[in-house]
Amino acid sequence: MTTAIDETHDPALRSWVESANGHPHFPIQNLPFGVFSPPGGAPRGGVAIGDSILDLAGLVSAGLLTGAGGQAAAASRLNGFLALGAGPRREVRRAVSALLAAGSPRLSMVLPLLHKAADCTMHLPCAIGDYTDFYVGIHHATNGGRLFRPDNPLMPNYKYVPVAYHSRASSVRPSGATVRRPKGQTKAPDDAAPVYRPSARLDFELELAVWMGPGNTLGDPIAIGDAADHIAGYGLLNDWSARDIQAWEAAPLGPFLGKNFSTSVSCWIVTPEALAPFRMAQPARPAGDPPPLPYLFDAADQASGALDLDLAVHLAPAGGTPQPLAHSHARHMYWTPAQMVAHHTCGGCDLHPGDLLGTGTISGIEPDSLGSLLELSEGGRRTVRLADGTERRFLEDGDEVILSARAHRDGFVSIGFGECRGTITPAM
Amino acid sequence: MTTAIDETHDPALRSWVESANGHPHFPIQNLPFGVFSPPGGAPRGGVAIGDSILDLAGLVSAGLLTGAGGQAAAASRLNGFLALGAGPRREVRRAVSALLAAGSPRLSMVLPLLHKAADCTMHLPCAIGDYTDFYVGIHHATNGGRLFRPDNPLMPNYKYVPVAYHSRASSVRPSGATVRRPKGQTKAPDDAAPVYRPSARLDFELELAVWMGPGNTLGDPIAIGDAADHIAGYGLLNDWSARDIQAWEAAPLGPFLGKNFSTSVSCWIVTPEALAPFRMAQPARPAGDPPPLPYLFDAADQASGALDLDLAVHLAPAGGTPQPLAHSHARHMYWTPAQMVAHHTCGGCDLHPGDLLGTGTISGIEPDSLGSLLELSEGGRRTVRLADGTERRFLEDGDEVILSARAHRDGFVSIGFGECRGTITPAM
Repeated sequence: MTTAIDETHDPALRSWVESANGHPHFPIQNLPFGVFSPPGGAPRGGVAIGDSILDLAGLVSAGLLTGAGGQAAAASRLNGFLALGAGPRREVRRAVSALLAAGSPRLSMVLPLLHKAADCTMHLPCAIGDYTDFYVGIHHATNGGRLFRPDNPLMPNYKYVPVAYHSRASSVRPSGATVRRPKGQTKAPDDAAPVYRPSARLDFELELAVWMGPGNTLGDPIAIGDAADHIAGYGLLNDWSARDIQAWEAAPLGPFLGKNFSTSVSCWIVTPEALAPFRMAQPARPAGDPPPLPYLFDAADQASGALDLDLAVHLAPAGGTPQPLAHSHARHMYWTPAQMVAHHTCGGCDLHPGDLLGTGTISGIEPDSLGSLLELSEGGRRTVRLADGTERRFLEDGDEVILSARAHRDGFVSIGFGECRGTITPAM
Repeated sequence: MTTAIDETHDPALRSWVESANGHPHFPIQNLPFGVFSPPGGAPRGGVAIGDSILDLAGLVSAGLLTGAGGQAAAASRLNGFLALGAGPRREVRRAVSALLAAGSPRLSMVLPLLHKAADCTMHLPCAIGDYTDFYVGIHHATNGGRLFRPDNPLMPNYKYVPVAYHSRASSVRPSGATVRRPKGQTKAPDDAAPVYRPSARLDFELELAVWMGPGNTLGDPIAIGDAADHIAGYGLLNDWSARDIQAWEAAPLGPFLGKNFSTSVSCWIVTPEALAPFRMAQPARPAGDPPPLPYLFDAADQASGALDLDLAVHLAPAGGTPQPLAHSHARHMYWTPAQMVAHHTCGGCDLHPGDLLGTGTISGIEPDSLGSLLELSEGGRRTVRLADGTERRFLEDGDEVILSARAHRDGFVSIGFGECRGTITPAM
């Protein structure tokens, strides 16, 4: 599963797109894939480079990007590209890297195919067939469980099962889309009956997105040793949650309307190739925890299947500037992405290119490393105070939540995931 | 929401397709829509008539079916047809009824467009965007709850919330597809740790399928009074369930691998028009039950939004003939289909044409009216004995489960839904 380090990762590599050099998210060492519309244009595949987007459809038309991979990466939906797997993806990435590298003889042909990102409209990168949300953030699971079961917060299955539930694909939107505060049934413990009203406990959840590549046919599980080959890339995911609706509805079948009113994802698919320098060993399990069952254990996955990624949440009150709210790290995932894929398919369920997996909320241990307001406010019992004096227990209308992720390692150029933003609008 | 009775429902109406007259499922008064391939042909839209299928693409080519509705009904996926709503659907149905009616002057043109159903391959009628499974069978909810909470089987939310969860769209298959016994983690109460192994408690669930029509945009709920207009039709659904996998994995987020290995649906979309004679008042709630909250209450829906449908389950052991296993009735739904739609969207979640809703298991009250083996065998504690002497607690490899539904009312010709079949194949 290890993705090779090659010339595209060279820290000395610079781009003739000047904004890329030193860019916090999109230096030439990243080159994530997405779908965008330039001003007045139709949706097409693109690659983020600095503060610009490279038009892959334009590259194909100009004969600068060839082959099945290039064609698929230029399409208005990347499902076909994701289906091709690592080989064609790596080829396209290397070709784009060469075209954007300082000294490229093609500069004059490529330059007209760059668009300022700020002038473009981003779209979902794929048609999402199914969206599954996991629960691999062990501190989130513990913190959430503690609100209901103080003495025994983690369920007995947690350390054996990469717990997940199916979520709603239709309501996933790209970063920047507004999020309407949902109405729903809520019932306070001492209310005689529930009332249909706007949620008063609206929350965000800091998650990673996993975009599926080739996938499997029904009845044919993906072995843990092959699972990484089926992951096409990563992003950020905000699993907006209405805690009061969720609390009343979720027994016995799990979350439904408390989650399905909106999910936001970042727009760029950051590839396993770009992340190759930023893998790490899965942190050792605490003493006494059981080892993964054999169908979830692969030595290479344990050695290098985790992600060395810093995560951050900012909150911008209406009319205000973004304030740090929490920071976390992907090492708090109890299961690797490959384990998520292997488990999802172990009973035969079929995953398809462009399917979306969420990791579940990735909280750390410290009070300022919690990935939801439910945890930060201890279930709404304490007030969270931001640097600008803003106080919150849950989200208010006009609040914008901004998730970000950044990978860095000595000897490599840092990359980011772009942002996953969403602003709360009032209930209907 | 009431759909008018018109000449297509006339009990005196007969078809020149002789097998249709007296057919238990597909007399000319039904005319359900589906997608089929004739021998050697590509998938296309069709209508079931007796033991034959009428090729709608052929009708369009011959100029016998016109307009946007006809074009969309002839396509290889009916999402576009379902999106058009009741008007075009009714027009196509009336046109097909006239073409198939005894005495039609078009007989000689239509006859070559009929295919023996037994020679054709059926497909899913739509690309299913999202699949949601409800829990509206109150006796099933009670029976299932009793296994875990004998004194208080129904959750406190049950009579307020049409409880549902998101299920897996990718693994829905048309009737006739085999169902591989899933492997998964299971743990008996006295096991020290779970084991990954084939499910030993494989079950069926007797449900109705609801196919979505036009749907809504994100953030814009469908009002209860409009909800029926967004239902394009009905079918049967078998929510295959691995009870041992489900029991171990489902806390705290609900069913996942215990359900997503396979779901079977009947292939024909039985329209609200065909079902117009077979609507009934929603049964009165037991004394003491709360009324539906206002967003779930519509007088017309209460007066005629329920379905007067007999349901049946047969089980055919390997090499044997189908034996009656259970019979039930759609009146055991505590919520109407319109209430399901209104609730699903009440927080803003968007439904799209071709989305699939399951009702949840529809069990009756009598011991032979239970819609799952979990209930029939009282959680596996007693043996169910079929008429041929076969004994079961859960499904065995080679078992075929056959769901069927039938509507009848004095003064009208009875119609059926066809069948929803699936045979269990051994685990990998």
